[in-house]
Amino acid sequence: MTEKQPYDPDNIFAKIIRGDAPCVKVYEDEAVLAFMDIFPQSEGHTLVTSKKAQATNLFDIEDDELKTLIAAVKKIACAVEKALQPDGVRIVQFNGAPAGQSVFHIHFHVIPVYQERTERPHAAGQPADAETLKELAARISAAL
Amino acid sequence: MTEKQPYDPDNIFAKIIRGDAPCVKVYEDEAVLAFMDIFPQSEGHTLVTSKKAQATNLFDIEDDELKTLIAAVKKIACAVEKALQPDGVRIVQFNGAPAGQSVFHIHFHVIPVYQERTERPHAAGQPADAETLKELAARISAAL
Repeated sequence: MTEKQPYDPDNIFAKIIRGDAPCVKVYEDEAVLAFMDIFPQSEGHTLVTSKKAQATNLFDIEDDELKTLIAAVKKIACAVEKALQPDGVRIVQFNGAPAGQSVFHIHFHVIPVYQERTERPHAAGQPADAETLKELAARISAAL
Repeated sequence: MTEKQPYDPDNIFAKIIRGDAPCVKVYEDEAVLAFMDIFPQSEGHTLVTSKKAQATNLFDIEDDELKTLIAAVKKIACAVEKALQPDGVRIVQFNGAPAGQSVFHIHFHVIPVYQERTERPHAAGQPADAETLKELAARISAAL
């Protein structure tokens, strides 16, 4: 059974949303925040999260918040596609640590797929260069 | 750039939705259909698709249809979790063949994750035994 843990308001994404931790921002409105994954699986790997949901994952998010979030995921995926022109885009959302979830605040991964490049594993290895992430974020933001 | 193809109304999921091709159904309402993946990556791998959207993927689905679809994905994921008690659940949605998309009608994968079992690759190998899929579908349906 997927381990259920109570929502921790001090998780790293909650801190980012509050402005208590940094991120390389792609997009923000009153309901959602999109920012670059610092352990990108591919160039342009972006995370989209809900600012309002106090939810660990899909199992405890309210439908209204989920609907707002998925519309933002689409918006970001379209911008990633336009800006970076990958060969495809994979959307992934993990529920529970055994499924790959490493931060327990609901979020979706927007992962560009490039046929000629090798993807890195999820949430592993060295963090990406901050300047590279800022440049990618600027390109994606400009395509919104 | 992700190859854009026009929506083909004779794709296999459109046929399943029309009743012109079989599926092992988990759930259906006026807007969505959920059925077992016949090439499951793990036990209980379920697909959730929009009956109304004439959309190949995330890039061309209307926001309203996407919102209805993701609420159904949550509903199915919760039922899979309750019925099969995996260690986690992964949600995946592919855009473009290089990203892993094999049927060009918008759909989400609900993939139970079991720590002690090896996952099969996506859309590959031998189709699952129909009776096994029917038994799994019945268990998931009963948990809705």
